[in-house]
This record gives sequence, C-alpha cells and structure tokens, in this order.
Amino acid sequence: MAETTKTPVTILGLGAMGQALAATFLKAGLPTTVWNRTPGKDADLRAAGATSVATIAEAIDTDGPIIAVLLDHASVHATLDPVAHRLAGRQLINLTSTAPNEARELAAWAARHDCDYLDGGIMAIPPMIGQPGASILYSGSRTVFDAHHESLELLAAAEYLGDDAGLASTYDFALLAAMYAMFGGFLHGAAMMRSVGVPAAEFGRRAATWLSAMTQSLPHQGAVIDTATYTDPIQSIAFHKAALDAINRASRDAHVTLDFVAPLKTLLDRQVADGRGALGFERTFEELL
Amino acid sequence: MAETTKTPVTILGLGAMGQALAATFLKAGLPTTVWNRTPGKDADLRAAGATSVATIAEAIDTDGPIIAVLLDHASVHATLDPVAHRLAGRQLINLTSTAPNEARELAAWAARHDCDYLDGGIMAIPPMIGQPGASILYSGSRTVFDAHHESLELLAAAEYLGDDAGLASTYDFALLAAMYAMFGGFLHGAAMMRSVGVPAAEFGRRAATWLSAMTQSLPHQGAVIDTATYTDPIQSIAFHKAALDAINRASRDAHVTLDFVAPLKTLLDRQVADGRGALGFERTFEELL
Repeated sequence: MAETTKTPVTILGLGAMGQALAATFLKAGLPTTVWNRTPGKDADLRAAGATSVATIAEAIDTDGPIIAVLLDHASVHATLDPVAHRLAGRQLINLTSTAPNEARELAAWAARHDCDYLDGGIMAIPPMIGQPGASILYSGSRTVFDAHHESLELLAAAEYLGDDAGLASTYDFALLAAMYAMFGGFLHGAAMMRSVGVPAAEFGRRAATWLSAMTQSLPHQGAVIDTATYTDPIQSIAFHKAALDAINRASRDAHVTLDFVAPLKTLLDRQVADGRGALGFERTFEELL
Repeated sequence: MAETTKTPVTILGLGAMGQALAATFLKAGLPTTVWNRTPGKDADLRAAGATSVATIAEAIDTDGPIIAVLLDHASVHATLDPVAHRLAGRQLINLTSTAPNEARELAAWAARHDCDYLDGGIMAIPPMIGQPGASILYSGSRTVFDAHHESLELLAAAEYLGDDAGLASTYDFALLAAMYAMFGGFLHGAAMMRSVGVPAAEFGRRAATWLSAMTQSLPHQGAVIDTATYTDPIQSIAFHKAALDAINRASRDAHVTLDFVAPLKTLLDRQVADGRGALGFERTFEELL
C-alpha cells in the first residue's frame, strides 16, 4: 500500500504511552500529528516524521481519527471542551485511562457534539506497544472500530467487546485489579523469602512459573462461578481457610507484617462461620456481590 | 529394575493428598504401607496393592522412609510422639503443611530422637500428583533427599533448597500467598465483569492470558528489589497510585465493595505522601520489611 493511502492519525498527549503509540504509527508510515499540553515531548517523534502542533485547534484540524491518551477523564474534557463545536462528524478514540462511568459520560458528551466515540483500554506498558503480547480492548462505536481496525492492529491486538462505552474500561480495570492483587502477593512472598536469605529475583523466577501455571485454573473457576455449583469441591472453603491461617503463621515467622491475603481470609473466615465451609472456594465470589 | 529392588515407603495420612501420593507410588511398583488415623480411606489403595495397617506401630515397622501427610503440625506430633523412641536411625519426610518455625521445631524434635528429617512443600493439588507441572520443594536433610530422590521424582519435580528445615515451607507459603492474592484479584475482577454481564468463565480465559503474561515481569521486579535501584522507573509509584485510584472508581461503578487491591493501595498512598512518588513501583517491597 502506498504511504499516501494510509489513514492519517492525530495523537493527543505525549506521555510515555502517547509517545509509544505515535512512534508505532510513524514506523508504519501513517501520517501522524502530535500534540501535548506542555512542549518538549515531541523531539524524537518529529525526527521520525511527525507533524507536531502547538494548539489543540491545529491538532484536530486534520483528517482521520483523533486518539486521546491523556492523564485522566478531567484532562480529556479540559483538552477537548474548548473545541467541542468542531468535533461534529469526527471520530474520537479515547485511550486515556478512564473509569467505566467516565467513559460512558464521554460517549454521551461526544454524541451531543455529533462525534463518534470509541473507548479503549490498553493492556500493555509503553515498551510493549507494537510488540506481540500487547492488546487493546475497545467498546463503544463499532463504526469507528471497523473503520480503523487495521491501524489499531499496528499498536496491539485489537478486540471489540460491545457498544457500551464503559465495557472496555470495566474489563481493563478488572484485569488490572487482578494484576495488582497478584503483584501485591508477589511483594508479600518476596518479603517472606528475604527473611530466609532468598533473593527476590530467584523468587520472581519461581513465582512466575508457579503463578502462570495457577492461572490455568481461572477459566474453570469462572465456569463454577457462572453455574454456582459449589458442592463436592476438590478442596473446600474450610481447606483453603486452613491454608490461609498457615500462611498467616508463616508470614509472622518471616516478620512480614502487612497481609496481602487478608481480604480473602476475611471472606473465607466469614463463610466458615456461616456454616459454608464444605462448599467450594469459588463460592467466595458471591460474598463480593 | 526389578520391583523387589524398589525402596518401600510408608505413607501416614490418607486425606486427598496422601491418597494421591500413595496411589502414585503403587502405580510405579513401590511397596507401599499406608495408615490413617480413622479407618475407611484405604479401599482403593488396598485394591492397588497397598499394605494397609491399623496402628502407627505397624506403620513404622517397615524399611524405607516414613512420609507424613497429616492435617497440621499438631497432628504430626500426636501421631509420632507415642512411637518417637522407635524412630532412631529412621528417615522422616514431612509433607504435612507446616509453618516454617513448625518445620524447624519438628527437625529439632526428630534430631533428638536420632531421626533424619526432610521437610517438603507440595506445590500442587492432589490431581496433579505424578503429572507434569507438579513440584515439591524440599529442605532439611540432604542425606534423606539424595537417598530417595528417585522415588520423590515419581510424585512431582523434586527440588532441594537447603538444610534449613523451614526453607521449603517458607517458599511454599510465599508462593501460596502470591497465588491466593491473585485468586482474590480474579474474584474481584470477575465481580466487576458480572456488573456488565460478562460471564466469569470468559473473564477467566482472558485473565489467565493476561496474568500469565504479567508474571513474566516478576523476575525483573525481583532484580530491581535485590539491587534497590528505584530511580528512573518506566512507571512510577505515582503512576501506579493513579491507576489504583481509577480501579477503585471502576470498582465502585461496578458496585464491587470489597477491595482486594486495598493493601497495595495503602502502601502506594503512603509512599506518595512520604515524597517517594517518583520512585519505581518495586520500592513498595521496602514498606513490608
């Protein structure tokens, strides 16, 4: 495909992620306009062929989709409210990290300005953009997604989830919640191992193998949750409560004070107290609803 | 190798795990003696060729290692104290889930009775025993480990960590702490997805892929922790604090009340308040010591 036929794109926001997205588009030969609230972030991108502009008015004086990668929901409004009247007929792809209801609010706001809105949640850190393993989940306007699917695939595996603009964000934060909980557990385990002289890097290698293997149980756990079949488990709530009690003792032995498994322990203890100790671990899900 | 040259083994405790271990030894043709505190758990094992005995005295009236897979530390003493005087010169492999200091106490107790003690932490659930992916970490007597390495490999990949009897247990519980933290995060994420109508099994499939990819960062995180190089991070504590604040908002939007990322959020908030927001996420480790 000749370069001139490639869709131009505009990137608003040149933090680490915005820069990574713009660099990836430029590498693929897409005409790329970049803008940042404060100057000085555009040197590498200009060298790679980007058109860098100083005002938001110039930034949206383009063809093709406007991709926002800003700090937060408030900064999307602060950036685009002044030019909202010029967004009619345009397509906005918001990759800024926004909560589900914030994404829904932006979709409604865009609709009021006749602007087509697609929300995205980036499941990657900046160095992963354009590499295998990165993915971006999208929801909102299917029209926008279909129109730019090819360009979006340059950034990361692109998946459209549905027309609720808040869906991608919910998925994003649900996956991040699980990741941060796992990272917290890793830090807790690494602190325990420090007490017996094992380096965190060694623990990290073993934890990566172990946790990766344990993730394979998650689809099954999910299926148990969906069908609410909690009887005849391989290992009961009472079994897991005993394991968490033992982890608490082991943590104390290792002088690790803050307990990353405390939230789960609270829920298991409560279920045992409620006479549900013989049911399966997955029933814990219902304590969250 | 003729079956008659295979080392006999004794299994104390026929819970789900004890049964799985005994069945695996029997399948490999090892002469296997089994005992349980209460009767009625041995039918399948007897059918598979096990010698089932009713008293602990008979159970240890054997050659080869004595493998304990009991309920907890107290039950190891309750079972073996009455026959402690007959353990001189014997080898005890304790796979009962015991905290590090409990394992150390048992090693000292065994030494007082001239019994060689090896502790083990089983990194598997019963159906995984004898299958690829299962592992058992050992520490304590290297002599016992080396003498029975071949038999132990039948159960799961066997790894000797060092002569501190509490080391395997510490590793075991450190890995389990990380796993339970991850499972808690999965339940939290699944509850968020329920709010937008996404089945937990679908979330589980995506979470397995995502979390498995994210485990690959753990060895690097560990290396950062070991060298305490927290400056110039790709993403700072302040960045991650903002992400956790957004997860909190997204969780509220989804009406998920209990927060599995709260312990980590507390530590990130504290570091930002202490003026450490520009440092790398891994510095959080030091808040645990």
